[in-house]
Amino acid sequence: MTLPAATAVAETFGPLSGADWLAAVVAGYEVGARVGLALGIDHFLAGHHPQGTVGVFAAAATAARALGLDAAATADAFGIAASMSAGLMAAQEGGMVKRLHSGHAAASGVQAALLARRGFTGIKSVLEVPFGGFLSTMGGDQAKLRASVAGLGSTWEIEQVGFKAYASCATNHTSIEAVELLLARHGLAAADVARVEVHVTSDAAIHGGYEYLGREVIEAQMSLRFAVALLLTYGTVEAAHFRDGVIAREDLVALAKSVDVVGDPGIDALGEARRFTAWARIETVDGRAFRQEVDDRKGDPSRPLSDADLERKFRDLLAAAGSPHADRILRLVGDLPRLDDIAELAVLLGGEGA
Amino acid sequence: MTLPAATAVAETFGPLSGADWLAAVVAGYEVGARVGLALGIDHFLAGHHPQGTVGVFAAAATAARALGLDAAATADAFGIAASMSAGLMAAQEGGMVKRLHSGHAAASGVQAALLARRGFTGIKSVLEVPFGGFLSTMGGDQAKLRASVAGLGSTWEIEQVGFKAYASCATNHTSIEAVELLLARHGLAAADVARVEVHVTSDAAIHGGYEYLGREVIEAQMSLRFAVALLLTYGTVEAAHFRDGVIAREDLVALAKSVDVVGDPGIDALGEARRFTAWARIETVDGRAFRQEVDDRKGDPSRPLSDADLERKFRDLLAAAGSPHADRILRLVGDLPRLDDIAELAVLLGGEGA
Repeated sequence: MTLPAATAVAETFGPLSGADWLAAVVAGYEVGARVGLALGIDHFLAGHHPQGTVGVFAAAATAARALGLDAAATADAFGIAASMSAGLMAAQEGGMVKRLHSGHAAASGVQAALLARRGFTGIKSVLEVPFGGFLSTMGGDQAKLRASVAGLGSTWEIEQVGFKAYASCATNHTSIEAVELLLARHGLAAADVARVEVHVTSDAAIHGGYEYLGREVIEAQMSLRFAVALLLTYGTVEAAHFRDGVIAREDLVALAKSVDVVGDPGIDALGEARRFTAWARIETVDGRAFRQEVDDRKGDPSRPLSDADLERKFRDLLAAAGSPHADRILRLVGDLPRLDDIAELAVLLGGEGA
Repeated sequence: MTLPAATAVAETFGPLSGADWLAAVVAGYEVGARVGLALGIDHFLAGHHPQGTVGVFAAAATAARALGLDAAATADAFGIAASMSAGLMAAQEGGMVKRLHSGHAAASGVQAALLARRGFTGIKSVLEVPFGGFLSTMGGDQAKLRASVAGLGSTWEIEQVGFKAYASCATNHTSIEAVELLLARHGLAAADVARVEVHVTSDAAIHGGYEYLGREVIEAQMSLRFAVALLLTYGTVEAAHFRDGVIAREDLVALAKSVDVVGDPGIDALGEARRFTAWARIETVDGRAFRQEVDDRKGDPSRPLSDADLERKFRDLLAAAGSPHADRILRLVGDLPRLDDIAELAVLLGGEGA
């Protein structure tokens, strides 16, 4: 929500310097993460999709900073954006609307900031006001106002944001890495593998372990079996694989059937902090067997991706999107703190560059 | 939400006949009312503003009908619109954002229908799907799916929609009428009145009986004391009175102080069906006293406004909005079922007519 919001403001009300663009994005991350922390997990468990709901605050903060709004107008932007907070988790079960949640939140946050800039006023103290305020209405019993401001300005929530190392549901990542390590360490190719068994928490098994039929992209993105099939076939799990010509390929669907996903009470017993722990076991066609455990996701703040990994991921994503601008964008991003105007970057990120 | 949605579709994708425009508006009323009935009152009590939240369904239904979408695409429009459902009740306590809820809902519903028309798919069975569906997430425990379809196509919810006879919070209407009747029946003018006492339910007294200070329009619109002051001064309570030059007038603020609002346990005891019951007592400067009770709101479906009343209200609202097109709009509305194209009406309703 922050990048498109900052970029949209720059495009329409620029010039915006690289430093201001960065500050706007950081403001969005700080506000978004803190509103999410204040809401707590009940918000999600009730069925709201935080990307869409909390996202309006991230976008409003970003746009307010990019527009140079003062504190009062920024508060109004929050008090307007809160009444545009929307997005239902059932979107993960099919349809395309989940893709719209971030965009709708970004647009709503920018709209809120633009209205506030013209003197339109929002709900006062929108997080904490008792009846019909954001936390009481959207947060359920768990809402903790204090979490929204604890350490504000000294603890940077943006540093707690991870990156996905694989183009699959985050719950699947430790399993994918375990299989990847087994293949690399033992020099195995797909033809050597007779069977893969993956052990995860019961929740993760429900989330990603369903039978894979290859009918739609979102099914493929959530499927641990398909991710392992991709890894065996291509050696990677990248965005480029999640398209119509690939997800239904018979060899991949068949390979996905050779992957067993086990919800393991032993892993459940490790508790919430170890909820991503997974181990994989590979049996080879010549009768050998290997086992590998992975506890934390690669790309989590505790195991950050290297700059080289991030650059490779970025290039993969741009290639999948058909953009030829990776080199130029990377150079501009490297120069961001010194750019007087991010206009060229905005055009290239929008995919409309020549 | 229905009129602007139908009109926006007509303007951009027209021509739309008067009959189709009417059918689209009716579709919006039926769907919106039924989604609201299915949600139940817990939705509002949790702090959601149904105008904004349920409103997306009304707008999506209207736009879908106006665009001629088939059943599957209309279902997709609902499944998209649901993820744009937003609006917080704290907006009633100040700020301007409450005015935005309807417009945001209308725009979101139209956007949802336009996306569905291009093949964008929404959440399936969006009302009833268990995790992250509309009723489970937004309705709380009270959600009743069956209410959304009971009598569909034979019971017309649009016939249960009332009109406001006075430009004030609906809770104040029976009190205003009681005072109006006393003035008319006993030939009283403001100068004759020493004191007004109004008895309402405890809830209504909290809602509209607060001290009136005349600081902002929304305060005036919710205030029973100010409404009575207007009635004593102008003989009416009309939209034209709710503007900066009037709401802070010292004589009206002083007059509002002579109005006592009493939360009456005797009325509370009559129960939910009589929650609008109110009685007013006027003491005159020459020592007389008169009492009048009113049970139902004028303009409720049980006490519908006459066509003449509605026309007068419409003309008042257009005058307050500065539009000179009342005659022409009324003629076009009278001809609606026979109009081949509502384009002219759309322009006039948009306030851009010559």
